[in-house]
Amino acid sequence: MRTHYCGTIRTEQIGETITLCGWVDRRRDLGGVIFLHLRDRSGSVQVVSDPIRTPETYTLAETLRSEYVVKITGRVYARPAESLNTRIDTGEIEVYAEQIEILNRVHKQLPFQVSQTENEFVREELRLKYRYLDLRRERMSANLQLRHRVVKTIRRCLEDRFNFMEIETPILTRSTPEGARDFILPSRVNLGEWFALPQSPQLFKQLLMVSGFDRYYQVARCFRDEDLRADRQPEFTQLDMEMSFMSQEEIIELNEELIWQIFKEIKGVELSRPFPRMTYAEAMENYGCDKPDTRFDLKLVNVSELFKDSQFKVFSGAIASGGIVKILPIPGGNETISNVRIKPGGNLFKEATEAGAKGLAYIRVLENNEIDTIGAIKDSLSDQSKQQLLTLTGAKPGDLLLFGAGDAAMVNKTLDRLRLVIGRELGLIDDNKVNLLWVTDFPMFEYNADEKRLEALHHPFTAPHPDDISDLTTARAQAYDIIFNGTEIGGGSVRIHQREVQEKVFSAIGLSAAEANDKFGFLLEAFEYGTPPHGGIAYGLDRLVMLLAGEDSIRDTIAFPKTQQARCLLTNAPAHVDAKQLKELEVISTYKPKAES
Amino acid sequence: MRTHYCGTIRTEQIGETITLCGWVDRRRDLGGVIFLHLRDRSGSVQVVSDPIRTPETYTLAETLRSEYVVKITGRVYARPAESLNTRIDTGEIEVYAEQIEILNRVHKQLPFQVSQTENEFVREELRLKYRYLDLRRERMSANLQLRHRVVKTIRRCLEDRFNFMEIETPILTRSTPEGARDFILPSRVNLGEWFALPQSPQLFKQLLMVSGFDRYYQVARCFRDEDLRADRQPEFTQLDMEMSFMSQEEIIELNEELIWQIFKEIKGVELSRPFPRMTYAEAMENYGCDKPDTRFDLKLVNVSELFKDSQFKVFSGAIASGGIVKILPIPGGNETISNVRIKPGGNLFKEATEAGAKGLAYIRVLENNEIDTIGAIKDSLSDQSKQQLLTLTGAKPGDLLLFGAGDAAMVNKTLDRLRLVIGRELGLIDDNKVNLLWVTDFPMFEYNADEKRLEALHHPFTAPHPDDISDLTTARAQAYDIIFNGTEIGGGSVRIHQREVQEKVFSAIGLSAAEANDKFGFLLEAFEYGTPPHGGIAYGLDRLVMLLAGEDSIRDTIAFPKTQQARCLLTNAPAHVDAKQLKELEVISTYKPKAES
Repeated sequence: MRTHYCGTIRTEQIGETITLCGWVDRRRDLGGVIFLHLRDRSGSVQVVSDPIRTPETYTLAETLRSEYVVKITGRVYARPAESLNTRIDTGEIEVYAEQIEILNRVHKQLPFQVSQTENEFVREELRLKYRYLDLRRERMSANLQLRHRVVKTIRRCLEDRFNFMEIETPILTRSTPEGARDFILPSRVNLGEWFALPQSPQLFKQLLMVSGFDRYYQVARCFRDEDLRADRQPEFTQLDMEMSFMSQEEIIELNEELIWQIFKEIKGVELSRPFPRMTYAEAMENYGCDKPDTRFDLKLVNVSELFKDSQFKVFSGAIASGGIVKILPIPGGNETISNVRIKPGGNLFKEATEAGAKGLAYIRVLENNEIDTIGAIKDSLSDQSKQQLLTLTGAKPGDLLLFGAGDAAMVNKTLDRLRLVIGRELGLIDDNKVNLLWVTDFPMFEYNADEKRLEALHHPFTAPHPDDISDLTTARAQAYDIIFNGTEIGGGSVRIHQREVQEKVFSAIGLSAAEANDKFGFLLEAFEYGTPPHGGIAYGLDRLVMLLAGEDSIRDTIAFPKTQQARCLLTNAPAHVDAKQLKELEVISTYKPKAES
Repeated sequence: MRTHYCGTIRTEQIGETITLCGWVDRRRDLGGVIFLHLRDRSGSVQVVSDPIRTPETYTLAETLRSEYVVKITGRVYARPAESLNTRIDTGEIEVYAEQIEILNRVHKQLPFQVSQTENEFVREELRLKYRYLDLRRERMSANLQLRHRVVKTIRRCLEDRFNFMEIETPILTRSTPEGARDFILPSRVNLGEWFALPQSPQLFKQLLMVSGFDRYYQVARCFRDEDLRADRQPEFTQLDMEMSFMSQEEIIELNEELIWQIFKEIKGVELSRPFPRMTYAEAMENYGCDKPDTRFDLKLVNVSELFKDSQFKVFSGAIASGGIVKILPIPGGNETISNVRIKPGGNLFKEATEAGAKGLAYIRVLENNEIDTIGAIKDSLSDQSKQQLLTLTGAKPGDLLLFGAGDAAMVNKTLDRLRLVIGRELGLIDDNKVNLLWVTDFPMFEYNADEKRLEALHHPFTAPHPDDISDLTTARAQAYDIIFNGTEIGGGSVRIHQREVQEKVFSAIGLSAAEANDKFGFLLEAFEYGTPPHGGIAYGLDRLVMLLAGEDSIRDTIAFPKTQQARCLLTNAPAHVDAKQLKELEVISTYKPKAES
């Protein structure tokens, strides 16, 4: 029907007669001349109709309203000098409408304006209910186009440069023991039995390595019926990769090239390589978290040694019970952060206590290295230990030191949180910076205090570090995460490829041989038939696109997302189903809605 | 770890030292010289070790067994003249193994041989249980590599040539009224309510057109909990496309280019364009089916007019009760098809009756246009009508005419079936031929006698032919199927984009306004806000790959398929789930397995 996309018309087309199809973004009637902004996915262009030059379309043009769908044929002219618009790509030309055909009208009041010029704030609920209109808006249209370009860049890099094969793995599969958050569905053909939707294609991609496909990738849909958390989706998309005959080093190198390519293509940034690396231990020590935002400094300092015999029992007591004392030093913090914010009622105090801290101790370094703090701390510090403190933290007059004391996990969580809040508040984070960072050498396990057992930190198929194989409980894993400006965008590991090692890991996490065999027998057996060394990685695609688009929510990168209540407001899913349908499946719902009070 | 893939080594590498990783396809020990065939996904290469030239590897090489995973470093040599092998790409060279590292062993007896030289028949159940070994075999590895290339060709053609965007649509969605075969799953977050898996992304892709994305595609997973049928899968993959501002003609043209590209890339065939077309009415009339195999002729001839007043009541009676009489003429059939096969007990008789026919009448045309048939037919034919019969069917001496008489659907089904069986038996089908055919102008509806109502032949979003809008019940649809050698590989339509037309169609299929609103209210409402004219198509990707690979089952084109009993023999899904899991979802299974007798 059309010859061109609206957003692509340039001065080169001047004099040509073209046909466009699209939506009326807005219509202005200026003294008998009608200006239409005609929009399609490529952008928009100005269309003109007036009674002198285009009498054949003027009457119809007057009847057009916002979001009418039209087909317009006309000739391209240079805009007169006074109406040049350098802010848009089509700002040097306009199209005189010689034919207008209305392809469809708008019959109801729009729930919100589509045209970006309106800049109206629209509640997300309304946007999601009328998602088809929301997606017409410039921002969302651009986000989905960006997503398409990201995926396209990834596919081509993996296929053309690295010889990866795209292979589809099943969506209807089996619930796994860690599968407490699996979606399950009754089988009609095999009554009484259930399929589960995969939380990731992990086992299938490992089996593809056993099959010899050696470089697999998939843009894979994954599912998790999670308790509601900010910015999670019950279905999400993963860029999933697995490779054989490659060491951790080679996997990391290949992935750096992939990421480099994405940033080059999408952001026009040429990242310097190799990316920085940090071990998990270093990250926890210096940043209190395993995904540090390294766009700004503010490193934590461990001062446990200094305070272990302190008179100040909050510190020495914490250390005595196996905890730690760490400091977040804030250069110039005396000026930028008032006591009100640190003391009960203040926002930093609140952040600290929300992270689990009982309070928020501090020291201010004054002129001549005098210190200002509460009496109990001041009294406990000898001149010598004061000096050591200043040396360890590198603090200078004017600096503020914030303390965390207690259980290591809580201290790290507290100071990590304070670091990010303060970094943001003090403008230490340069939004134009793009920092990528590998975090490596994660521990194999963490202790689950509730269940009194070790849990795999990544997943139980992760290979232990070859140096640590003698005691798995404290072993490092051959696992790696890739961090982009403080957000984990991907993570992976070298996998176990030997049955005896896999069995040891299952046993370490408290899976009995019988359970292991019931759930993973096919994997253990596969290891007996010539499994190559292999490893892989998975990226959260929704999150990666969100960061590249500069959005704050993954919902803004997904065409038809669910709400945080896991509902689709457009189709109103989930919904009640026919009793007949349930009967055929031989299942019943026992849920009784509570009576409304 | 490696420098090359096994199957890529050529004479150009002679003299180089290379490193390969892969599986021992087989090992032969010929008078103190060990020959290994080392295999990876690219193919295999001959590796040699002997005590004189490579004493450092000979002892280890002796211990290697089939399917061991090894890393081999060695130098490439030209094979001696007497061991050149022109049947394989690496047949001119061999690699002397200077280092061998065993990466993993085989610890158990293989359930079947992987090496293609064994040519062992393996039951499909066993292949599926050990799918990771089955996928190592040359045929299956080639099939998945072909599938990858098909998808890659499609993506690039659509993206680079036609400006399509890949957009993901939800897997967790809502059950539709035609959704008797929907998989449904309970929501834990919204207890009592159910998600459904999509049978196709139909509604979402139409909404993407409303959103202005104008050219969408997706390699989309679809789900249907169907009664068991030959060669269906509960989850299958569709190449799904939708376009705005395009007529049926333009959609067909674009798709011809896509198909042309696939055949060029995958089969090296340059199809001639435009592809032939046939209306549904023509296809039914001439071939008795809507997906004719046009690689061979054998067209049906309608002789109802000739027999409507016949003395032979089987024919005239059928016509009197609204039926038809058709003939399948078989040139030279007197010689090739004996009476035994046509009469009760014969295979053609059996085919006919299985298709619903009560019997299988025939006429043999003899020398001088005499005819041989049962008395009742012979007696009923005047010389004039005999002459007309020969003229209508073009039959010559030696030809056999097979009759179908009765209800049109049954007659067509019978003669279609006979045509295919006979075509195959008589070698009329040239397997090297590639025939593509568009079938167009399908009827909008067909009558469902069980439910006493009209049903959409394609789906209720299909637009009626503009000439037929006055009476929808008999209208043709703007629908088209693409047929490849007698198999439907894709189908689509122009969609309705106006609320009033959509409401008429819902009403024609007996959907009340309330039901239509409950289930499709969001679509009807979307039509009010500026919906562009649009249309699309979907291809069955598994089937397309199957045909391109020359396979007979779609299971051979899917990495991890389900059996015809909808089970995964590898992971043993579906399975029973923990009572705890069901309790959390507030569902129970009421299925009681019958006691074994």
